[in-house]
Amino acid sequence: MQVWNDYLSENKDRFLNELLDLLRIPSVSADSHYKNDVARCAEAVKDNLLKAGCTQAEICPTAGHPIVYGELMVNPNAPTVLVYGHYDVQPADPLELWKSGPFEPEIRDGKIYARGACDDKGQMFMHVKALEVMHKTQTLACNVKFMIEGEEEVGSSNLGIFLENNKEKLKADIVLVSDTSMISMEHPSIETGLRGLAYMEVEVTGPNRDLHSGVYGGAVANPINTLCKMIASLHDADNHITIPGFYDKVQNLTDAERQALNNAPFDLKEYQDDLKVNDVWGEKGYTTLERTGIRPTLDVNGIWGGYTGEGAKTVLPSKAFAKISMRLVPHQNSDEIAALFQKHFESIAPASVQVKVTPHHGGEPVVTPTDSIAYKAASKAIQTAFGKDPIPTRGGGSIPIIALFEKVLGLKTVLMGFGLDNDNIHSPNEKYDVVNFYKGIETLPYFHKYYAEMSR
Amino acid sequence: MQVWNDYLSENKDRFLNELLDLLRIPSVSADSHYKNDVARCAEAVKDNLLKAGCTQAEICPTAGHPIVYGELMVNPNAPTVLVYGHYDVQPADPLELWKSGPFEPEIRDGKIYARGACDDKGQMFMHVKALEVMHKTQTLACNVKFMIEGEEEVGSSNLGIFLENNKEKLKADIVLVSDTSMISMEHPSIETGLRGLAYMEVEVTGPNRDLHSGVYGGAVANPINTLCKMIASLHDADNHITIPGFYDKVQNLTDAERQALNNAPFDLKEYQDDLKVNDVWGEKGYTTLERTGIRPTLDVNGIWGGYTGEGAKTVLPSKAFAKISMRLVPHQNSDEIAALFQKHFESIAPASVQVKVTPHHGGEPVVTPTDSIAYKAASKAIQTAFGKDPIPTRGGGSIPIIALFEKVLGLKTVLMGFGLDNDNIHSPNEKYDVVNFYKGIETLPYFHKYYAEMSR
Repeated sequence: MQVWNDYLSENKDRFLNELLDLLRIPSVSADSHYKNDVARCAEAVKDNLLKAGCTQAEICPTAGHPIVYGELMVNPNAPTVLVYGHYDVQPADPLELWKSGPFEPEIRDGKIYARGACDDKGQMFMHVKALEVMHKTQTLACNVKFMIEGEEEVGSSNLGIFLENNKEKLKADIVLVSDTSMISMEHPSIETGLRGLAYMEVEVTGPNRDLHSGVYGGAVANPINTLCKMIASLHDADNHITIPGFYDKVQNLTDAERQALNNAPFDLKEYQDDLKVNDVWGEKGYTTLERTGIRPTLDVNGIWGGYTGEGAKTVLPSKAFAKISMRLVPHQNSDEIAALFQKHFESIAPASVQVKVTPHHGGEPVVTPTDSIAYKAASKAIQTAFGKDPIPTRGGGSIPIIALFEKVLGLKTVLMGFGLDNDNIHSPNEKYDVVNFYKGIETLPYFHKYYAEMSR
Repeated sequence: MQVWNDYLSENKDRFLNELLDLLRIPSVSADSHYKNDVARCAEAVKDNLLKAGCTQAEICPTAGHPIVYGELMVNPNAPTVLVYGHYDVQPADPLELWKSGPFEPEIRDGKIYARGACDDKGQMFMHVKALEVMHKTQTLACNVKFMIEGEEEVGSSNLGIFLENNKEKLKADIVLVSDTSMISMEHPSIETGLRGLAYMEVEVTGPNRDLHSGVYGGAVANPINTLCKMIASLHDADNHITIPGFYDKVQNLTDAERQALNNAPFDLKEYQDDLKVNDVWGEKGYTTLERTGIRPTLDVNGIWGGYTGEGAKTVLPSKAFAKISMRLVPHQNSDEIAALFQKHFESIAPASVQVKVTPHHGGEPVVTPTDSIAYKAASKAIQTAFGKDPIPTRGGGSIPIIALFEKVLGLKTVLMGFGLDNDNIHSPNEKYDVVNFYKGIETLPYFHKYYAEMSR
């Protein structure tokens, strides 16, 4: 609508600068050193909600980092959209690989570089600014509630309790989330599924102390060698995961569904060139899109043990550690998979070592319906703003909380993501294209308009 | 001899305090932050040599850390003993596992706790003090030269050049080294062989940047998983090393030789209890003593990659690293083994990753003769001081320079070690028993006496 475009044009520089201010706050939820910064970021989100038109906004304390709630109720007969997002970010290390400081946002070649630029401050902030656009042009068709949390990157462990305790306050008709990606600006898409997550930490102990690898080497189990052997055994020669029962509940798609998934635009050579790899890798019998979309995985996210400093140290270490996570697909359950992993990992440990397995946070896989009013409204909004219909895709990432929205609040979710796969989320040089940021702010009001119209 | 015992008794507290002063200098050769401390330690060694009676002592600069040379020539017709030792120490980390500071020596339960207490400051210093004992009691029967280096823990890379350039100065009849261990004070022993070393660093690169493990997981090779698989494949099910050609030159002992080796006192239960392991580990078909004494090994000394901080980060990292070393036995050659390792490791890398292999320092295995005058003198010295004959054993560790002494200087070596296997060398809480320190000072003059007598 012209009135939206005009308002956006007049205020676009300010919108961008407000986002940059938010990106300057190092709200790393995983690291307790940043606790005060996370709290400061929650305050900034609250201020921004009030500034955008929310009649009410508050910081809701939890056992961990706080949740920011805000609302603007315009019409008791109109549907209510609950916007979910998160203001916390992933740790920024390895710092030395960033071209500019992770918390000193810099715009280069039309891209905003900063930790959280895409995931999720940039995307979450589009909703705040879209609200301002609709509010200031007096075109808001739905009631809007915001629930912006500070623990998404560490498993949203306190959000479930918040949902349980605030069912009335959070009453809505649909949850709207921008925390995923689309194929490209030329091929807009909507994710209709997300993988779940089970994240484990393992500790392998050999001898009770670090030993001299000459005096003891060859006669005492080296926990690093042993850990490597155990990790290696978790995939077979076809890259299937070997944990007994792991695939038991995996939803198998029909040939037609697989065909539809593989119809999405995808250029393998471009994909490999972007990552500078000579070959892709994955489960035998599946395409790259299937491997990330509909198949579960097991990745080591971190490993450490022994001497990792400069030069050479001939140590046979006492301990070795790894962080191992599994992405899950419908209808796998994160607790069940965590238990299967633990049982299996303990069972494959040789008598010469001891193993400790500790689960970190988990999250459930989700599939969002494509036949709902909300999906149709999202689809039409994108059609209007981009000039073409969005392609439904399956995302490889996880937003653990989506499954809980349905379970606790009885609400379905629409995933309107405007990120790109190469946004380097969770990596050095995370970025968000300025044009995507503005395109999101342009598209989201259409969702509210169509959703209100279709709900009548 | 009474005169030695008397002198030792009168000065034992001072001897110990002088050692503690030396242990307070953090002469870590592997870490360039300690460069000045290493230099300071060389000065302290020189001062101690002069104080003990050397008529000449000097700091000899090298391209790396300096070598300390000293001598006391008493009789042109007497044989000359070249004492080799080192004043540099291993890195002290992990620091948090030390009960007292690694460079704040503390005596608890009759043991000196400090980095370098045994390896090798404590053992090297016994020779300095034994010289003082013989010099002050005017009983020195051999000429003595000292060559105390500062790069043993980083591969002695400049000592070879020093040997080449100082053949005249280093002219001697035997090299005497205390940098190994004995079975126990009840079972004194002399090591008659040492393993060699090939030390490699490997880097596995998957994608060109850290990726989100949800967006890319399952479709792109994870370098940590790949590295684990590659490392796991380096041993087969019987724990034989799988590198082609690795065992080609390994010296196979006769059944009688193996029997003799296994006759050494060894209690497997005690060994396991000391290390708190439920089972030993190693190459099928060999005993623990054989596994550390006469068989080559492959150990990962360090591994790192991905996120290793607090909490969970869902990263599919770009790179993973490991430090891998192999202990070698006669007649393996460290350069040949390094080349075999590199070729094999590169060959097993899948197309989805890139591999870089960098050799660190190496060292050759050695066997010292047991039928020489020097060995007999060492054996008789121990018999005199301990009241029983020493058992010949094979040590698992490496002193890379021993092979060079023979090659460059044409000199055989005697390894009179007074350490114990549980001295935690290269580990936190390194210690040296005070009684072993004094026993060494008591024993060494007998070696000089008998060696001079037998050489006549």
